[in-house]
Amino acid sequence: MSRVLLSGGVGGARLCDGFYREPGAGPLTMVVNTGDDFEHLGLYICPDIDSVLYTLAGVGDRERGWGVANESWTVLERLGELGGDTWFQLGDRDLATHLLRTERLRRGDGLTEVVETLARRMDIRATVRPVTDQPLRTYVDTDEGVLAFQDYFVRRRCQPAVRGFDYRGAAQARVNLAVLGAFAADDLEQIVICPSNPFVSVAPMLALPALSEAIMSAAGPVVAVSPIVGDRALKGPAAAMLEQLGYPVNALGVARYYAESAPGLIDAFIIDDMDVALTTEIEALHMRCGHTDIVMRSDADRRRLARWIMEF
Amino acid sequence: MSRVLLSGGVGGARLCDGFYREPGAGPLTMVVNTGDDFEHLGLYICPDIDSVLYTLAGVGDRERGWGVANESWTVLERLGELGGDTWFQLGDRDLATHLLRTERLRRGDGLTEVVETLARRMDIRATVRPVTDQPLRTYVDTDEGVLAFQDYFVRRRCQPAVRGFDYRGAAQARVNLAVLGAFAADDLEQIVICPSNPFVSVAPMLALPALSEAIMSAAGPVVAVSPIVGDRALKGPAAAMLEQLGYPVNALGVARYYAESAPGLIDAFIIDDMDVALTTEIEALHMRCGHTDIVMRSDADRRRLARWIMEF
Repeated sequence: MSRVLLSGGVGGARLCDGFYREPGAGPLTMVVNTGDDFEHLGLYICPDIDSVLYTLAGVGDRERGWGVANESWTVLERLGELGGDTWFQLGDRDLATHLLRTERLRRGDGLTEVVETLARRMDIRATVRPVTDQPLRTYVDTDEGVLAFQDYFVRRRCQPAVRGFDYRGAAQARVNLAVLGAFAADDLEQIVICPSNPFVSVAPMLALPALSEAIMSAAGPVVAVSPIVGDRALKGPAAAMLEQLGYPVNALGVARYYAESAPGLIDAFIIDDMDVALTTEIEALHMRCGHTDIVMRSDADRRRLARWIMEF
Repeated sequence: MSRVLLSGGVGGARLCDGFYREPGAGPLTMVVNTGDDFEHLGLYICPDIDSVLYTLAGVGDRERGWGVANESWTVLERLGELGGDTWFQLGDRDLATHLLRTERLRRGDGLTEVVETLARRMDIRATVRPVTDQPLRTYVDTDEGVLAFQDYFVRRRCQPAVRGFDYRGAAQARVNLAVLGAFAADDLEQIVICPSNPFVSVAPMLALPALSEAIMSAAGPVVAVSPIVGDRALKGPAAAMLEQLGYPVNALGVARYYAESAPGLIDAFIIDDMDVALTTEIEALHMRCGHTDIVMRSDADRRRLARWIMEF
């Protein structure tokens, strides 16, 4: 009875944590997006992987949703004094992760190995896997031109209107063997697509042909959780993106995007109780539709949602 | 009336600072050793250059003699928790320097340019120059084998007995044009070899053939200041190295080492008042010998010694 979770950052990390802390969830493999990884100040930074690691380790900052709790910013402040780039927020504790990872990668270790080491040193007992060790980079086509993801997301604060996405490297990038192995398990109970941004957290992973194929041929059903409640994203630019790309700005828009971009991949779609009126339209997309309270405010919420999905 | 100072870290940085704060010292070029530069955690670290920069900028830690004052160690502590290397002390503020420098070097800028930027951003009005932009690495031949300098110095705390030195890259490394220009100035009043370790701070620079030639053909005399007072080094392993290499453990030992390794290069040698009895033996090495209080405890001491040398 194993489970695979596909996750981006904040919202995905929270649901990962819910499964992680819920007895009976079985062996978990968390497959994490690397499309928003980037190099900054010579450091190799993996925002989604780190959000998952910090959240599972219990050291994540709960208010910001990213980075380490009780963080200090001494290096960044001094960098600013020296005229260095400070547009990307790097906390002191967070920097230790990036230094360690960058050094290991430069020595020739793969990202999978490095994440394994970091997870072990943070006493995480679940398996956290980057979707690929090879370059996968999300670019955002906007009305101000094509922007690298972090340029769009952090530097430009999601202001430019989105026209499309390019998941560079997806066609060539190999899915890690350990990831393929998790999908091929005979006892695979569920594949859960976490409530992460469909366009920039989930789609970059599904853009790897081998990953989509592995999901399609897996033993368990695919359950996706809406990152939209009402007409608002739980976090980040998902609602704005839906609107700018011409989708309904609600859970139906997300379901329709998944149905169009990955036909037949998703078996069930979970929406919030308040969106129950969308059920018929979502089921018309050939997905079973369930509803519950999907907003995760507390640790108890995370576990409750995980348990509800396990029993669904 | 310009001056060139050859400097290593702590002691050299203090005398550089004395000249820097002494009106009338004229345009100063501080040529700094890069033989103990190294890469650590993917960062390019220049201990001697940083000591000079921090000291001139007035942000250096006075007690330790290296690093930034009021430093915090959050990144290093977290690195330790994650199982990373912590044998080399990297403070948070100090790290900002290394991050900025490493990024610029990776982008293809030369060390000279990068140091120029750092100096400008620290509001330093003197010229600080790495002796070379190319690889120059001091290796220490010890009774435990050949060790990279920081391995010997920091990790092994200077415990292995020294048998010799290898300044790798010295024969090939080009001296920076800006450095050669400073030596070629018609108005060059003095070349000062600061009270730095002769073996690992000064000798790596003199090992560059073009640097020794530039010094020999410069207009001004070469004045070296002893880093040894009585039988003790003002800082670091100079006294132990003299002993292990069979030199007298005093200022005479330093003068003799310079006379043997760089014959005819030094015109005058400055010792402490307490060592005045060594004058005749030092002058027998064909150096003029002067004595004053060479111990720099306070800012006033630094300026007093600089002024004394200017008037010598």
